[in-house]
Amino acid sequence: VKRIRIGVVGFGNLGRACVEVISERSCLFELVAVFSRRTVKGTVALSKIEEYKDKIDVLLVCVGSCTDAPVVMPLLVSNFCTVDSFDNHAKLSEYIERIKSSQGEKVSIVGTGWDPGVFSLMRIYFDAILVPLSNSSLKSSQTFWGEGVSLGHSNAVRRIQGVKDAIQFTVPKKDAIEAVRVGEVIGAEKKHKRVCYVVAQKCEQDRIEQEIRTMPNYFAGQEVEINFVSWAEFEKHYRGRFEHGGLVFGNDGKSQMEFKLKLESNPYYTACVMVAYAIACCKLVEEEKYGVYTVADIAPRYLSFENVISKI
Amino acid sequence: VKRIRIGVVGFGNLGRACVEVISERSCLFELVAVFSRRTVKGTVALSKIEEYKDKIDVLLVCVGSCTDAPVVMPLLVSNFCTVDSFDNHAKLSEYIERIKSSQGEKVSIVGTGWDPGVFSLMRIYFDAILVPLSNSSLKSSQTFWGEGVSLGHSNAVRRIQGVKDAIQFTVPKKDAIEAVRVGEVIGAEKKHKRVCYVVAQKCEQDRIEQEIRTMPNYFAGQEVEINFVSWAEFEKHYRGRFEHGGLVFGNDGKSQMEFKLKLESNPYYTACVMVAYAIACCKLVEEEKYGVYTVADIAPRYLSFENVISKI
Repeated sequence: VKRIRIGVVGFGNLGRACVEVISERSCLFELVAVFSRRTVKGTVALSKIEEYKDKIDVLLVCVGSCTDAPVVMPLLVSNFCTVDSFDNHAKLSEYIERIKSSQGEKVSIVGTGWDPGVFSLMRIYFDAILVPLSNSSLKSSQTFWGEGVSLGHSNAVRRIQGVKDAIQFTVPKKDAIEAVRVGEVIGAEKKHKRVCYVVAQKCEQDRIEQEIRTMPNYFAGQEVEINFVSWAEFEKHYRGRFEHGGLVFGNDGKSQMEFKLKLESNPYYTACVMVAYAIACCKLVEEEKYGVYTVADIAPRYLSFENVISKI
Repeated sequence: VKRIRIGVVGFGNLGRACVEVISERSCLFELVAVFSRRTVKGTVALSKIEEYKDKIDVLLVCVGSCTDAPVVMPLLVSNFCTVDSFDNHAKLSEYIERIKSSQGEKVSIVGTGWDPGVFSLMRIYFDAILVPLSNSSLKSSQTFWGEGVSLGHSNAVRRIQGVKDAIQFTVPKKDAIEAVRVGEVIGAEKKHKRVCYVVAQKCEQDRIEQEIRTMPNYFAGQEVEINFVSWAEFEKHYRGRFEHGGLVFGNDGKSQMEFKLKLESNPYYTACVMVAYAIACCKLVEEEKYGVYTVADIAPRYLSFENVISKI
């Protein structure tokens, strides 16, 4: 069997996790190169990626969704098939159009990972199957995140002046989960609690706490718990933690569907999902079905070389 | 918007549930007729179904999987698109071939419902994403059924001579669930307990108990609890119960995926899934993608008329 030749773009937490998963699944995949814009030992300069266009079947694109992916992707998709975990829900349509306008005879699968990704699949299936009666107060699917480390929120706190290091745990509220499970509708800001552990000098803590609590989009209007901890404590308990997870619920008043994810490592699982969609990517190329896809556009059997009939 | 014109074949518990769901979703669906081989008030004789071939977009086929579906389906699929919940896992491939050989320019979606159906989807996704290391004792996805009423097992007990009525509850064992959740591998026969409530005369109970416990495929080799109850007690507590549910687990040692279903009515939920796949059926016809499909072959976005991008 010919193995799928993989390139990884970006060598942060997610890129490293992709390299790990590819090496674990070496029967099916071969890592050709890791590309980085920075000079990192063991990586190839991103500027040289065109030289690899006939040597790679799928690129796993592991760069930031906010600023990097929209810039990097148009350069990649003319010559390469790609799988990414673009996670800016609000900008997804714009991102897809951007890729389409530069794409060659290639396949790009965008927004894989777990949210967007596996959680999106669940929301789509749950809402297609469970349709609450029109006179019902029930809503379509509802999502909880956590308990786990939000890298985005952790970074937002780290950017505050005077913060030496910080981590933010997203904690779904137990009473909100129970309420949603029986069909109540709860606003997103009431579903979660945001718990921060911050290293900072004593004299700056009041100001920092104030800045966290009032930070728009990230913390303002939500239940926030802030704990200042010593450098030693942070090193011991919080450094390098990547666990995450979450829940998707559906309830039409008669049937309950519930999907739960518990992850030791958010980047590792995201990489597992991306690698499964790399298989889908190759199958779509074989069928000459070029274009840009989300997880909603791909039939489950494309994700695996196994005989799915045995699983039905 | 043109509504989808639905025909229902079979008027047992599932057929009735389909009629209920169609009437609840009358914005999208129109019930044209219910077909039955028996003379039932409000139904059309199945022998007259050909007269409806231009009046129906999708038939929801609600006949038994063991003996009825393999006989009835070849007659239907030359003129109609169909969605069924064929649930004989072992005979699925044979069933698909049978349909293919009689199919016109139509779409048939087989094995929808929840198992096969939604649980199959979960097993496929879980196993595609979570791949335990080769030196691991972990297995791919594992399924539990219950706590709920198994119609198949209830019928098997009812067929025993001297049984006036009976119901069988499939109960997943709590310790087995916990063991599977942390990655242990448990044989199917050790995962569930089968609890029967049986109405029978005192003098026949010993023989009936013996026949249940030794019944191959259904009860032999499994943990079985048999309770003889009075007619009055059966009427009060067990008549007309249809609740069911179950769990699908995936665990690669680092990530846990878990899907839980809790159903007030097994037939109602099965009908909800069939109706969602009726939408998929129409979309596939519009795209002229004729053929026989399982849930593994259909991209999630086909199941709904909603804009799925908003759910990603």
